[in-house]
Amino acid sequence: MKKNEELLRTIEMNHGIVSMIDQNKLPFEFKIVQSYTYSETCQHIKRMTVRGAGAIGAAAGFAMAQAFLQAKSENFETYIIAARKEIEQTRPTAKNLFYAVEKVYKAGLISHEKALEKAQQLAHEDEEACYNIGYYGNEIISQKANIATHCNAGSLAFVRFGTALAPIYRAFAQQKEVHIWVDETRPRNQGARLTAWELSQANIPHTIIADNATAFLIQQRKIDMVIVGADRIAANGATANKIGTLEKALAAKYFNIPFYVAAPSSTFDIDCKIGDDIPIEYRSEDEVLWISGQNKTGLSCEISTSNPGSKACNPAFDITPAELITGFITEKGIIKPNRAAIGKLLLNI
Amino acid sequence: MKKNEELLRTIEMNHGIVSMIDQNKLPFEFKIVQSYTYSETCQHIKRMTVRGAGAIGAAAGFAMAQAFLQAKSENFETYIIAARKEIEQTRPTAKNLFYAVEKVYKAGLISHEKALEKAQQLAHEDEEACYNIGYYGNEIISQKANIATHCNAGSLAFVRFGTALAPIYRAFAQQKEVHIWVDETRPRNQGARLTAWELSQANIPHTIIADNATAFLIQQRKIDMVIVGADRIAANGATANKIGTLEKALAAKYFNIPFYVAAPSSTFDIDCKIGDDIPIEYRSEDEVLWISGQNKTGLSCEISTSNPGSKACNPAFDITPAELITGFITEKGIIKPNRAAIGKLLLNI
Repeated sequence: MKKNEELLRTIEMNHGIVSMIDQNKLPFEFKIVQSYTYSETCQHIKRMTVRGAGAIGAAAGFAMAQAFLQAKSENFETYIIAARKEIEQTRPTAKNLFYAVEKVYKAGLISHEKALEKAQQLAHEDEEACYNIGYYGNEIISQKANIATHCNAGSLAFVRFGTALAPIYRAFAQQKEVHIWVDETRPRNQGARLTAWELSQANIPHTIIADNATAFLIQQRKIDMVIVGADRIAANGATANKIGTLEKALAAKYFNIPFYVAAPSSTFDIDCKIGDDIPIEYRSEDEVLWISGQNKTGLSCEISTSNPGSKACNPAFDITPAELITGFITEKGIIKPNRAAIGKLLLNI
Repeated sequence: MKKNEELLRTIEMNHGIVSMIDQNKLPFEFKIVQSYTYSETCQHIKRMTVRGAGAIGAAAGFAMAQAFLQAKSENFETYIIAARKEIEQTRPTAKNLFYAVEKVYKAGLISHEKALEKAQQLAHEDEEACYNIGYYGNEIISQKANIATHCNAGSLAFVRFGTALAPIYRAFAQQKEVHIWVDETRPRNQGARLTAWELSQANIPHTIIADNATAFLIQQRKIDMVIVGADRIAANGATANKIGTLEKALAAKYFNIPFYVAAPSSTFDIDCKIGDDIPIEYRSEDEVLWISGQNKTGLSCEISTSNPGSKACNPAFDITPAELITGFITEKGIIKPNRAAIGKLLLNI
């Protein structure tokens, strides 16, 4: 299995300095930002400079390692506990964040070198997992396929390769004739901004649509399958992912096309027994009311299309029940969305 | 039944001059534009200065009457036939347009006075029908209700009162505690721009959400019912309405809350036996790729949030199967979404 070396790493850490692609600047500007302290890294997670389940996990692991690097021997424990809390409060939904923080925290109690090593190992594991998700996911993609995805669960959302897009990258590399329907993913437009950018970079044919159009295109038989990522998966298979995922899953079920969720084992959370146990992040109403982009002369602008004075509500994720999901594409193979299969998957971690 | 005189007419014709609220300028500017010829009126329909099933119908009827006013006795027939064709080619999906053009055309063959009279009568009938839709629709709204709607099927989409919003206006006037979830309705944001504006004008509590959020809010039991409008309804009850309607209907069905379509008899089309017979308009990809709005200093701007170079696809309507619809709220009462009930409704026109 030869890896596609052309796909950049979204985030990495060298000598305690975290470098990441500034995803708020994409697709109009490609910029790498560096973060020297765990607090800075936290700010980048919050502001979504780095976003996406796996990339958030890697960033949180790196931030935890940075905290161990920064900690002085006096007040060591207080400092580390405060740092851990700060990191964990950046984004509440992605399981990968808590998974990484926990692992790096435990390693750091031995030494800060162990923390750095564990954070690097987790990032490396994310890359490996995504690579294998691509391997298994490719097996269910036909020689010619129209695939819809939602939000960005691509290379940018992980350290590399991504989850939902990993099978697509692999299918394309194997000369399969794939075409991707990319929905905008309001309110932050990660589909139109990031997924379309990634697919463009890789020369993969794709078309942007309004979020409202997915069900219609499924009804018109213009979409053969849906593959999305996940931020957290409960023990019963209920899946938290970007707001709107549930609407796509309902459409796929009704019109009887496969709906797959691609995610590494680190996204599954057996402590959440059912979907209702997954905390859902509500973000600022300004994300709905104000839209950032670039005008025709290339200037950055922020505009509103909403009635001035009206308020907004902005849940960032929704919960898709397991019965709407055809299967989970994991780094260990494709599994059924039920308690037994998930239990078996997690036994091997 | 006393009418709410405070709701403005969206479109009207006086002495052959059509006046309409410029809906492309809302919510940031309230402007009335006038159109002196049928061609000008056609341009306004195309550019969506006037939009929404009933308002398009009224505008098309007025345009047809204007054509009879403008026609000279030489080449009368050629002129009128060309005018009719031009009007019918402005927007293909709304049934009301073809309904109005046909009626005014027939009247105009007698005299241009008859054409003007018929166009006025149709506009008046639209207003009456919407008023009655409000009357019947109000009966299914509880004393306290969270109602979701999609796009704008309010006063602005008709001559007055609207369809989906008419029951809400009436419920609010009767002191019912209503709160409306207004989705943006990408790509043209008629929800965030027009429905939110209308509801603000009437002081009706409402909250704007991304289109992606409706299913989640239904799942969370924050939405009690959905009421939408329609552009054309086939003989079997399949309903063409703004793209995204289907996704809302699927969510309502799955989570078992009522999903009503509010429309006057003129929206039903027995010549379309099933949903597939309804022509679906595809609009310019620029509507997806470019978003118009106003920046924080009040200047109009057009921005893109999409990856430059990526293409887009922009179907303007979708088809909701009858089995997802709880009932049609018509000007003659609420009917079941089946062939027999629709046949009976249309027998009385």
